[in-house]
Amino acid sequence: MEVIEAVKTRRSTRSFDPRVLPTEIMKDIENAILNSPSGSNAQESHFVIVQDERQIKNMKRFAPGLSGNPAAIVVLCSNANESFIRGGKDSEEVLRFVNLGIAAAYILLTAHSDGVGNCPVRSFHKESIKRILDLPPEIEPELLISLGYADRPPRPKTSKHVQEVISFEHYGKY
Amino acid sequence: MEVIEAVKTRRSTRSFDPRVLPTEIMKDIENAILNSPSGSNAQESHFVIVQDERQIKNMKRFAPGLSGNPAAIVVLCSNANESFIRGGKDSEEVLRFVNLGIAAAYILLTAHSDGVGNCPVRSFHKESIKRILDLPPEIEPELLISLGYADRPPRPKTSKHVQEVISFEHYGKY
Repeated sequence: MEVIEAVKTRRSTRSFDPRVLPTEIMKDIENAILNSPSGSNAQESHFVIVQDERQIKNMKRFAPGLSGNPAAIVVLCSNANESFIRGGKDSEEVLRFVNLGIAAAYILLTAHSDGVGNCPVRSFHKESIKRILDLPPEIEPELLISLGYADRPPRPKTSKHVQEVISFEHYGKY
Repeated sequence: MEVIEAVKTRRSTRSFDPRVLPTEIMKDIENAILNSPSGSNAQESHFVIVQDERQIKNMKRFAPGLSGNPAAIVVLCSNANESFIRGGKDSEEVLRFVNLGIAAAYILLTAHSDGVGNCPVRSFHKESIKRILDLPPEIEPELLISLGYADRPPRPKTSKHVQEVISFEHYGKY
């Protein structure tokens, strides 16, 4: 799928059918992660891909934001220590989250272009997810992305007026 | 360009030739911004697109990270107040930066798929950029993305070992 088409048509999927995801698609997700750029190429983020049914069931107990039964969950994790070492206070406070957002979008668009539904989720119990995934203390789960084949069409997007979102040359000018 | 190809080939461009960007490409960038998802669809970010030569020259004086002479700069801004109102402390401290990262990736991949070089830049003097763009106090410039036609091929990416970046099922397992 063309980038522009993917950008225009990707919406969150919250209900999945039971099909598992083929290996080639999981390879594309890995490629999306490995190719996503990060500030000063620090690559301080870590990503845990979960496809084991029991792990997913376990995680769902502590993630009220996770709807439906996804075939896989990508757990996007930041690393405050390494961010600080690589880029100082700014990386620790801001850039590590921007970097994760960039990786998230790479995953969302790649999944969508492969016909795989997806939904980013921020509502979960951090400590429980850390425990389930054996994350070291310095690795923080920040975002979950559920993946799977959608079993119904997504809701259309409601958008703000373009002038509220975009200006040209100076703020408020469109 | 296919999403997977864009993901695999997009690199930062730091040197541009003098060509301006056609209107259709700037429309694609607008579409990338307007379609980028945000937590709870809050759309609290704001984006200033700068193409005026004098504005760009002015900005470059206060943005040591901006290399070359780009044809356009997209200024990605967060809004701490609105983030807090929409999503509380978590949105103010984390989610607004994740949302900006998602929008950044949408812009990077869209530009690249149109054959337009691009580079995200975090090194600039915030207050000066705010003044140049007439940003209200609550609107913070967080990331610049330079856009333009590359005048030389980008450097290849150096990546960490995949096991440092990705785990399966549990941390450290690949």
